[in-house]
Amino acid sequence: MVKKADILVRFGARVRELRLQQDYSQEAFAHACELDRTYIGGIERGERNLALRNIERIAEALGVTLAELMKGL
Amino acid sequence: MVKKADILVRFGARVRELRLQQDYSQEAFAHACELDRTYIGGIERGERNLALRNIERIAEALGVTLAELMKGL
Repeated sequence: MVKKADILVRFGARVRELRLQQDYSQEAFAHACELDRTYIGGIERGERNLALRNIERIAEALGVTLAELMKGL
Repeated sequence: MVKKADILVRFGARVRELRLQQDYSQEAFAHACELDRTYIGGIERGERNLALRNIERIAEALGVTLAELMKGL
């Protein structure tokens, strides 16, 4: 049985995928989220167990619903 | 313009809705999530800014995907 990657890693990869689809640099994206660039980097590397309020900020900056952000995870 | 309720309140209501659909008591549900009953109560009242790992536990206990859990939020 294939073990699924950790939720933090899967979430980070999803954020990165959506960010790149929208041609956002990490820096511009961090600015849109009003979060620090190093924090965004940590999220994308699966190092951050981030909570609902910041998850919502990310969804809003990407212009997607929370369900769309979580799609496939 | 109608202001959306806070994400914590919307998420808590969604958890409660899915829990009740499955005829889970708060106590049995907390046990399934391996979380404390008072913590689940706080989530349902919109008092908890919970993070990805616990969001995943809740989705797993409910047998839904993260996207399904976030549907409509």
